[in-house]
Amino acid sequence: MSLNTFGHLFRVTTWGESHGPAIGCTVDGCPPGVPLTEADIQPWLDKRKPGQNKFTTQRKEPDEVRILSGVFEGRTTGTAIQLMIENTDQRSKDYGDIAQAFRPGHADITYHQKYGHRDYRGGGRSSARETAARVAAGGVARAALAALMPGLQITGYMVQMGPRAIDRSRVDLATVEGNPFWCPDPVAAADWAVYLDELRLSHNSVGAVIEVIAQGVPPGLGAPLYGKLDSDLAAAMMSINAVKAVEIGDGMAAATLTGVDNADEIRMGANGPEFLSNHAGGILGGISTGQTVICRFAVKPTSSILTPRQTINQRGQEIDLITKGRHDPCVGIRAVPVGEAMMACVLLDHLLLDRGQTGGVRGVVG
Amino acid sequence: MSLNTFGHLFRVTTWGESHGPAIGCTVDGCPPGVPLTEADIQPWLDKRKPGQNKFTTQRKEPDEVRILSGVFEGRTTGTAIQLMIENTDQRSKDYGDIAQAFRPGHADITYHQKYGHRDYRGGGRSSARETAARVAAGGVARAALAALMPGLQITGYMVQMGPRAIDRSRVDLATVEGNPFWCPDPVAAADWAVYLDELRLSHNSVGAVIEVIAQGVPPGLGAPLYGKLDSDLAAAMMSINAVKAVEIGDGMAAATLTGVDNADEIRMGANGPEFLSNHAGGILGGISTGQTVICRFAVKPTSSILTPRQTINQRGQEIDLITKGRHDPCVGIRAVPVGEAMMACVLLDHLLLDRGQTGGVRGVVG
Amino acid sequence: MSLNTFGHLFRVTTWGESHGPAIGCTVDGCPPGVPLTEADIQPWLDKRKPGQNKFTTQRKEPDEVRILSGVFEGRTTGTAIQLMIENTDQRSKDYGDIAQAFRPGHADITYHQKYGHRDYRGGGRSSARETAARVAAGGVARAALAALMPGLQITGYMVQMGPRAIDRSRVDLATVEGNPFWCPDPVAAADWAVYLDELRLSHNSVGAVIEVIAQGVPPGLGAPLYGKLDSDLAAAMMSINAVKAVEIGDGMAAATLTGVDNADEIRMGANGPEFLSNHAGGILGGISTGQTVICRFAVKPTSSILTPRQTINQRGQEIDLITKGRHDPCVGIRAVPVGEAMMACVLLDHLLLDRGQTGGVRGVVG
Amino acid sequence: MSLNTFGHLFRVTTWGESHGPAIGCTVDGCPPGVPLTEADIQPWLDKRKPGQNKFTTQRKEPDEVRILSGVFEGRTTGTAIQLMIENTDQRSKDYGDIAQAFRPGHADITYHQKYGHRDYRGGGRSSARETAARVAAGGVARAALAALMPGLQITGYMVQMGPRAIDRSRVDLATVEGNPFWCPDPVAAADWAVYLDELRLSHNSVGAVIEVIAQGVPPGLGAPLYGKLDSDLAAAMMSINAVKAVEIGDGMAAATLTGVDNADEIRMGANGPEFLSNHAGGILGGISTGQTVICRFAVKPTSSILTPRQTINQRGQEIDLITKGRHDPCVGIRAVPVGEAMMACVLLDHLLLDRGQTGGVRGVVG
Repeated sequence: MSLNTFGHLFRVTTWGESHGPAIGCTVDGCPPGVPLTEADIQPWLDKRKPGQNKFTTQRKEPDEVRILSGVFEGRTTGTAIQLMIENTDQRSKDYGDIAQAFRPGHADITYHQKYGHRDYRGGGRSSARETAARVAAGGVARAALAALMPGLQITGYMVQMGPRAIDRSRVDLATVEGNPFWCPDPVAAADWAVYLDELRLSHNSVGAVIEVIAQGVPPGLGAPLYGKLDSDLAAAMMSINAVKAVEIGDGMAAATLTGVDNADEIRMGANGPEFLSNHAGGILGGISTGQTVICRFAVKPTSSILTPRQTINQRGQEIDLITKGRHDPCVGIRAVPVGEAMMACVLLDHLLLDRGQTGGVRGVVG
Repeated sequence: MSLNTFGHLFRVTTWGESHGPAIGCTVDGCPPGVPLTEADIQPWLDKRKPGQNKFTTQRKEPDEVRILSGVFEGRTTGTAIQLMIENTDQRSKDYGDIAQAFRPGHADITYHQKYGHRDYRGGGRSSARETAARVAAGGVARAALAALMPGLQITGYMVQMGPRAIDRSRVDLATVEGNPFWCPDPVAAADWAVYLDELRLSHNSVGAVIEVIAQGVPPGLGAPLYGKLDSDLAAAMMSINAVKAVEIGDGMAAATLTGVDNADEIRMGANGPEFLSNHAGGILGGISTGQTVICRFAVKPTSSILTPRQTINQRGQEIDLITKGRHDPCVGIRAVPVGEAMMACVLLDHLLLDRGQTGGVRGVVG
Repeated sequence: MSLNTFGHLFRVTTWGESHGPAIGCTVDGCPPGVPLTEADIQPWLDKRKPGQNKFTTQRKEPDEVRILSGVFEGRTTGTAIQLMIENTDQRSKDYGDIAQAFRPGHADITYHQKYGHRDYRGGGRSSARETAARVAAGGVARAALAALMPGLQITGYMVQMGPRAIDRSRVDLATVEGNPFWCPDPVAAADWAVYLDELRLSHNSVGAVIEVIAQGVPPGLGAPLYGKLDSDLAAAMMSINAVKAVEIGDGMAAATLTGVDNADEIRMGANGPEFLSNHAGGILGGISTGQTVICRFAVKPTSSILTPRQTINQRGQEIDLITKGRHDPCVGIRAVPVGEAMMACVLLDHLLLDRGQTGGVRGVVG
Repeated sequence: MSLNTFGHLFRVTTWGESHGPAIGCTVDGCPPGVPLTEADIQPWLDKRKPGQNKFTTQRKEPDEVRILSGVFEGRTTGTAIQLMIENTDQRSKDYGDIAQAFRPGHADITYHQKYGHRDYRGGGRSSARETAARVAAGGVARAALAALMPGLQITGYMVQMGPRAIDRSRVDLATVEGNPFWCPDPVAAADWAVYLDELRLSHNSVGAVIEVIAQGVPPGLGAPLYGKLDSDLAAAMMSINAVKAVEIGDGMAAATLTGVDNADEIRMGANGPEFLSNHAGGILGGISTGQTVICRFAVKPTSSILTPRQTINQRGQEIDLITKGRHDPCVGIRAVPVGEAMMACVLLDHLLLDRGQTGGVRGVVG
C-alpha cells in the first residue's frame, strides 16, 4: 500500500476532496467478464450516503456513481475501471471560519505541517467523504466475489456506541438493516437512539466499534509473512478515517486467555476440518482457516463539534474553536458500509494473489 | 507489503525457517554512509534471544548476525544489506511426533491447506524464529534513524500479562530493563513472575499486551490515505506472529469517548504547537503530530502447550495432541524487541518517503 | 510497474478507452506546493492532439484536460491529482465492421485471448488514445521538475521515418517545432512530407524512430540494480503503444564498439567532472552522470490500414480485412510528445526516489 | 521494480558485492510443491561461470549455490527461497590502484556521486558478478515453469560480436552449445574466435548482441498497459550490467517497415490462430500471441581494459588509467545465460499474474 493506492493485485487508487468537483477511484486488476453496471454499485453507496436520518450529517449528496472505463456491454474488460461520484452539495461557506484554524483531534494541523498547502474546505482530502470511493470500489469487489467465491457473505454492524455495547446474547443479524445504526441487537439500538440524540443536542459526538464478518471464506487466503490476511485487514481498516484500533477474532481479549482456552480445537467434519471455537477469527498464521473471518475496529468520535475547544490557528494564535457545519454525531454509523467494502476488497485481492501463486490448489486433509 | 517484503522505500525481505540452516533478511533502500557493524545490530538480537531465563523457550541460540553485503569499511553503501543468522540448535526430533498433526490455534493447518507441502520442523516458516530477522533489520533502521532523527527514542514494554494489567500510576520506564518481562511497573513484574511460573508448571501459556512508543518523532511523517503512518504500523505489528489486535493512542477505548473528551486541545508553545493530551497517539489523519507515537498490540498465548487438546492429523484422524518441545509460556515477552524493531523500520521508511515527496519542508505555524 | 500504474514514488495510473466517455489518470506522489493549473498541462496535450494536419488521424478531439482533485488555489496539495479528458468525437460506426475481426499486427487478438471480453470500439483500451493521459501526467511532472530541477530541458524529435534517417550534421533543435514531424533536420522534414503523403495515399503506413533527450539532469539519479534509470526508461518507453525497441546512448550500436572507443573519457572541468563523449547516453551503472540523457525508441507502423490483409475473425473464419477509420499514417509523429512525457515522469520519479534515500547529498569529486 | 527487487508476484531480490563474502538472492512468490534442489540450479550457474576458457575472465569461482530456505524435502514450500553463492576468489589487491579512480565507461563515478561511499573492490555492487544471483533465480523460475508451462523452451545465443553479425541463413540452434560464444552460426563462431583473440591481446574489448527466444509461450501473458510483457522484458534486460538497448521482434528495424509489410497475417490452424510471420516477436499490445517471444539486447564492451584512457580520480586529478585484473574481453558472452534467466523470471511472473487475474481462462477463437 502506498499513498493513495491499496491492494496487491486488485488495486484501488482513490482521489478527490470533500469540496472539489468530484471524487472517485480507479479499480485495477479486476478479473474480466464480471457482470457490472452502476446498479451493482449504487446500493452500497446508498447505504453510506449522508443525510438519511438525523443521526448522520445533513449534507445532501445523491452520491451517484458513474463507470467511466473498464466495463463494456455490462461486463468488466479486465482493464482499469474508473468510478466517479460528483460532489453536488458543497457549501464552502460553512467552512470559511476554520480555514486558518486547526480543529483539535482533526488532521487539519498535520496536513498543514506536512504539505504546507491544503484544501481546507470540508477537510479536503482528509474528509470522510473519501470513503465513498472505497464503498464504490467495494461494490466492484463484491461483483467479482459473487462470481469467484459464491458462498461468501460479508456483514458489518455496530457493536458498541460510546461505552454502550450490544448484548451478544441478543444478536440477530437479520435486524441489522432495521435501525439507523446497523445494530444487530434491537434493544441496544433503541437505547442508542436516545443516547445519541442527547449527545447531538448537547453539541457532542461519540465513538463506536464496528464488526465486519465474512462467512464462506475458503481456507488458504493470505500470504505470510507480510501479506498476511490479518495484516492486510489491519492496514485496510486502520486506513479508514477516524479508526484507532483493529482486532481480529478475540482481538485485545486474546491477551487475557491461556493457551488451553485459546486453542480452537479441531474435529473432522463431513466436509473437512471443523473447529469447535473461533478465537482466531478465521485466520491462523495469516491464512484463512475456512471459518468466519471476524474483524472489529474502533472509530473515534467526530472531532468537528459545536462545543468550543482550545486550539491555535495558522498564525500561531491561541483561540477557542467551535466547528459549525453538518457533521455526523457518530461517524461510526457510516463506517459500517466502509468496513464492509474494505473487507470485500481485501478478500478479493487475496483470492487473486492466492490463485496466482498456488493456482488455487489446496492441501488435502483426510 | 507483499509476501515476504515490507516497507515502501526502506524495504525488508525476510527468509528462513526455524530448523533450516539459517534465517535472515535483505534490507534495501537504507541511506548510504550510515555507520554500521554487526556490533550495532547484535544487542537488539541479544534482547530477543531465546533461553535467557525460565520464562522463555529453552532453545539455545547465539543468534549471531553476519552482514554479508551492503556495508563497506563500517558504513552502509546504499545497496542491499544482507543479514544472516545461522540456526545452531535445531533439535528436529522434538517435532517428529507433530509432523503430521495440526496444533490447535497454530498455523500448521493453514500452511498445509494453502501450500500442500510445508516444513513442519519447529513450525518452519511460521515459527516466531522469523522475528529474529525483523529485529536484525530493526537494528539497521535504528542506525539510520540515529543519523536522521537524532532525538528519537523507541521503547517497548509489556503492559498486560493475561488479565493482569500494569498500574499506569506506577509506570517507570527506567525499570523496563530490570525484569524479565520488560515491565515498566515493578509491582506488576513481581506479580507476573509468580503467575507465569504457575502457568508454565501447569502446562499452560498466556497472552500479553505490548506497548511500543516513539518519542521525538517530528511532525509530518505518514502519507494519507493508504500509506498512513498508523495504517502501516497496524500492518507491521499485525504481521508479527501471534498478534491479534493493534491499537494507536487510546485504541479501542477511543470508541468510548465523546468528541469533547477526545479532542487533544492545542496551545502554542515555545517551539511550536503543543497538545494538552494525546488520545490520538501522536497521529492525526495518518500523519505524525510531533507528539509521542503510541502503539499497542495483543499477543495471543502460545499454542504449543503440554496440555492435551483435541485436533486432527493430516489423514483426517481425530487425535489428542500435546506439544512437547521448548516453547515460550508467554511469547509476548520476546515480542517486545520485535515490536520495537517494527516501529523503527516503519518510522525510517516514512522518513524516507516523506523527504522523497516533500523534501522534508514543513508548513509553518506562527 | 503493475497493470495500469507506473512509477515508484511519482505514480501514474491511467484509465479509459478510445470510445468511452472519458480517459484520464491519477497522478500520485507529486510534491506539494507546485504551481499547477489546466493551462500548464494543456499545451502538451495540444502538441499530441489528433487532427492537426493531414499526417495525423482526422479524429477531432479538443483534448481538454480538467483537474478534478489534488490542486487547490493553483498549487498542488501533495494528494492524488485526478486529470480527466472527455472523449467527444467517438464515431463508433467506423469500427463496427471490425468488432469481431482481428487486425493483423494489432492487439485485437491478444486482448480477446487474454480477457475473453473487450471493448472493440476504436481499439478500446489498446488504443493510442491512452497516451493522452500520459501526456497529461507528463505535464504535471514538468511542473514539478520546473521547481525541483530548474535547468532541465526535455526535447523529443523524430530521427527516422521508415528507412529515411535524418542527417545528424544538419540537426538544429530550434527547427523541431517548425514542421509537422518534430524533425530536427529541415531537409529530412521536407523529404518526409512527400514520402508520407505517398504512403498515405497508397493506403499504407510506416514506422519511425523517436529520440528524447534530457539536458540538465544532475548526477546521481537512478537506483541500481532494478530501479536503474535506464531500466525504468526502457520500461516506460516500451509501454507506449507500438514501440518495439528502446536504446540508451549508442544503443544497439554500442555492440559494435571496442572498449577503447566506447570509453567516455573524463576530464576535470570548472564545475566538476566533464566527459569527452557520451556513448553512455548520460547513464552509467543505471545512474545519471550529469551528461545529457539520451533515449531512442522505434515505433512500428500503424496496423490499421486500408490495404487488405489476411486474417481471421472471432468465429475462426479466414477473411481479408481493411481497416477504415481515421488512422495515423505514421503514429510515430504523435509519439514524440508521449516520449517526452514519459521522460519527464521517470526523471521526476527518480529525483524523488533519490532524495528519499540519499537526501540529495552527492559524493564530492575534487 | 524497485531498487534491488524485480518482479510482480515472482519477485527476486538480489544482494552482494563482487568481493564480499557472498552474493545471492531471495526468490519470493514461487509456487509451492515445485521439485527443486541445488542440482537443478547449478547447471545454469556453471554456464555463466567465469574462467571457463580464454575468452572470459580468469577469475576462478566454483559458484556453488546453496539453498538456505523455502525448500523442504526437495520441493518448494511457497515461502521465501534464499540462494547463496560464496565468493572464493577475491583478489582485492588487483583493484587497489583503482580504488580512488573512476574507470571511463564504468559505474565507478556514478556510484561515488550518488552514494558518496562505495565498495570499490572489483566494482562492488556494480560488478557483473551480481548476475550470478539472477542466473540462480532463473534456475528456480525454470523449475517452476517446467511444471506450469511444459512446452516452454528458452534459448539464448549471441548474434553479433562487435560489428560481426551472424548469417541468419546458417543458424542452427543445435550448435549453440558447441562453441565458447553461444553462437548459432558455426562459421561466425570460428571467425569470432580469431577476432576476439586479437582484441584481447591488443588490450581491448568489444560489445555484442544477444538474442533470447522463448518457444511454447501460451497466448495471454502480459498485462497492459504498464505490466506489458515487452515492457517488463525491456526493464529486465536493460537492468543487466552493460546493456544499452532492448529489442522485441523486429526491434529497431520495425521503424523501417510499412504497415503492409509489418502485418503478421493470421490464418486458422488446426490448433487455433496461426501467424504467417512474426515481426511482432510474439507480443501484441503487451500480451503474448502464442508465437515465439523474441528479445534482443546489446551489450557494450567491457570498460575495464589494459589500454590507458584519460580520466580523473576522486581528488579531481586528471590521470591516465589502465585497468589491470581479470576482465572479460567480451562480457556479452556471459550475458547469454543471464538473459535466459531474466526471460525465465519474467515469463513465470506473468504466468502467475495472469492466472491471478484471469484464472488462466482464455477467450475462444472459432
